Amino acid sequence: MRNGIAKRQEALDQADLVAGNGLMSRRALLTAGGRMTVAAAAGGMSALAVSRSAAAEALSVPPSMTVPGAPMSGYGQPSPYEEAVQRGVLKPYGDLAPGTGVSMTPLQHLAGTITPNGLHFERHHNGVPSIDPETHKLLVHGLVKQNLIFTVNDLLRYPMTSRTCFLECSGNSFFNSFPKPMQMPCGMIHGLISGTEWTGIPLATLLDEAGVDPKGKWILAEGADSAGMSRSVPLDKVLDDCLLALYQNGERLRPEQGYPMRLLVPGWEGNMNVKWLHRIKVTEGPTETKDETSKYTDLQPDGIARQFTFPMGVKSVITHPSAGLAMQGPGFYEVSGLAWSGHGTIAKVEVSADGGNSWAEAALQEPVMSMMLVRFRLPWRWDGSLSRLMSRAVDDQGNVQPSHEAWAKQYATGPAGNLYHCNAVQTWEITAEGEIANVYV
Amino acid sequence: MRNGIAKRQEALDQADLVAGNGLMSRRALLTAGGRMTVAAAAGGMSALAVSRSAAAEALSVPPSMTVPGAPMSGYGQPSPYEEAVQRGVLKPYGDLAPGTGVSMTPLQHLAGTITPNGLHFERHHNGVPSIDPETHKLLVHGLVKQNLIFTVNDLLRYPMTSRTCFLECSGNSFFNSFPKPMQMPCGMIHGLISGTEWTGIPLATLLDEAGVDPKGKWILAEGADSAGMSRSVPLDKVLDDCLLALYQNGERLRPEQGYPMRLLVPGWEGNMNVKWLHRIKVTEGPTETKDETSKYTDLQPDGIARQFTFPMGVKSVITHPSAGLAMQGPGFYEVSGLAWSGHGTIAKVEVSADGGNSWAEAALQEPVMSMMLVRFRLPWRWDGSLSRLMSRAVDDQGNVQPSHEAWAKQYATGPAGNLYHCNAVQTWEITAEGEIANVYV
Repeated sequence: MRNGIAKRQEALDQADLVAGNGLMSRRALLTAGGRMTVAAAAGGMSALAVSRSAAAEALSVPPSMTVPGAPMSGYGQPSPYEEAVQRGVLKPYGDLAPGTGVSMTPLQHLAGTITPNGLHFERHHNGVPSIDPETHKLLVHGLVKQNLIFTVNDLLRYPMTSRTCFLECSGNSFFNSFPKPMQMPCGMIHGLISGTEWTGIPLATLLDEAGVDPKGKWILAEGADSAGMSRSVPLDKVLDDCLLALYQNGERLRPEQGYPMRLLVPGWEGNMNVKWLHRIKVTEGPTETKDETSKYTDLQPDGIARQFTFPMGVKSVITHPSAGLAMQGPGFYEVSGLAWSGHGTIAKVEVSADGGNSWAEAALQEPVMSMMLVRFRLPWRWDGSLSRLMSRAVDDQGNVQPSHEAWAKQYATGPAGNLYHCNAVQTWEITAEGEIANVYV
Repeated sequence: MRNGIAKRQEALDQADLVAGNGLMSRRALLTAGGRMTVAAAAGGMSALAVSRSAAAEALSVPPSMTVPGAPMSGYGQPSPYEEAVQRGVLKPYGDLAPGTGVSMTPLQHLAGTITPNGLHFERHHNGVPSIDPETHKLLVHGLVKQNLIFTVNDLLRYPMTSRTCFLECSGNSFFNSFPKPMQMPCGMIHGLISGTEWTGIPLATLLDEAGVDPKGKWILAEGADSAGMSRSVPLDKVLDDCLLALYQNGERLRPEQGYPMRLLVPGWEGNMNVKWLHRIKVTEGPTETKDETSKYTDLQPDGIARQFTFPMGVKSVITHPSAGLAMQGPGFYEVSGLAWSGHGTIAKVEVSADGGNSWAEAALQEPVMSMMLVRFRLPWRWDGSLSRLMSRAVDDQGNVQPSHEAWAKQYATGPAGNLYHCNAVQTWEITAEGEIANVYV
């Protein structure tokens, strides 16, 4: 038999409510003194309390215990039962340009903060090149004392550092720049964001070896893909924290992440993190490449495009519950999501379950790292009524994630409007039937 | 032409030397004031300084820029050029029991601290079961107020937490318990260690819901594999920090890591982290299962086996350079490796390049987390002579990694001797020919 919901409900009424429509204090669940309220809060959680005989039945030997299992393997893969957990591919030109587009991290199926390499989002302008690491070369030239050429084997001997950080396409959440909210899974709206541990060589080391001319104030970084993807980066940022990344989550880069090497520009627009890097040129000013003029500029209401919005804005999104998942009846849920800021470190995430009328502060999972995804969590008891879940992040520089309305006002809208830097608050509307929709508030 | 080695060597002589046989201060490389010594320290680093015409030639369009690349994909895989980077499989019973054995993380090919899920080590006693998450159940019973049965869908609604930590088989480095040092790659000696981000439910939450009888002081955790792998864990540890893990590095557990759920016992023997968990029984004392009596005990010189050595000892290993790699001539190398302790947080790692005559403190990559792998690094200029590289870790509880001799004295040796808990200092001997061997010092 199911546990007595009524009895749990009674205890729940004692639980700390911290905001409207059922948001609960995480302390009530996690402190020793409050532990008994967990079962109470469970309400609609559905552990089955069973008799001794039912327990004995549960102890009956499952099929997996009756036959030897599969052997060890050289490189593991996800369970066949999880094969639906894939990146969502969008090819705007279809088979005319099958390598132009994106694949998006399925945020609604993931937990924690690290993205597995196989599910890190992709954004390619003309596909993933196949590059032989034995022949690939990196040229450092331009305003330097000596031109330098590095092979991969050269670079593997240099002093390295590791940086765990997010990478976000500046076009992430572009569907939310549309006049009407689109209905699709959370990961298809917001999944051009991932977080991993990168290891490589501080670019400062290589530039010091080349010797930067005092006139040099920018670099041009160019990829060896057939789009010739290239971006300009101010030298101050390059010397501060940019890496020539060779490893991701411990192993060498995947092809779609720039194998054998990419630029890592922590916190800044994803496409500045040039993949398949084969050339760094030190320059006096920005090079004004096609990738920073015809694209990756922000069209404003007056028709003028703002150039060089480098850092990705402070942002958060609730991934559980979110579109692409379904509610399983009233009762307890953990509201959980990701927050990040290209300006620094997340200081606070607030959650609302009543469409923004009241807010409560969520718990942040340690370690909270600068320019890395942060997992936030807050307990919630859903009473089964129409509810609007929202999250709002604040970073340590005082930046506050804007409402959808405030965000949209900054930019030109409409079919040819601005697609970039959408960091507006996401609202998920939960219907009494347990469906979850994208709405603008 | 190559840079003038002699000129670099001259500058190198100015660099901070911090211990014998060429160990250099990392500060000399990384502080702004010391940056110019990087090129100097490079010595044997082999960036090619090139003329303008050679640079122009390097700019010639590589083949990858002349054809469209591959399209986006649902789930990414490593580069074909990295297909040699695999877990090393050992099957002691061969095809008689192909699912009994280990596969080991190729540490010498990895960097950073996160292990990608596909390369996390495996240790199975009778293979990897295939378990349907729709039918799998977890039973909590024994000394509890109410027996509880949880389905996977039940559990996905519970409050979760994430923990980035190492997992080490208590038999890791067992080859180094042999009387003579075995010659094989670093990962085949020490690769039963990996580090990942786990996400799941504090076991305390589930046990609180079941209601633990005051007589309950231990739990028995049993897996649904055909070895019926089962271990006893003291309740204090369970309530302190054990998780029912559902996710690893963001995605659901891989089959070989316990899909759909495993026990996570941070810092303690790997096989206590019972995979494919289907039963937790609260007991008065340890259950004395076969997996904690016939195995996973430590045979001492007097013939008595010590039972229940739970935490994994403080340990470190240099992964670069290490056996399985080859030196590329005299000059600059970064000595880099991993350190960890099941007792707490790594406080210090020292490195020696002269077989233990002198030591220098390595830099630790932030964030340094309790019971997680820590990457340490120290610059080294190899003069091409016979050298012995060693690392020695100290944790914040004052535990010091023992020498091989001191470690071996604690245990019975020989063919039937103790195989477990080998945390002795690893010495890599580098010959003048650039070969790297495992030696005992």
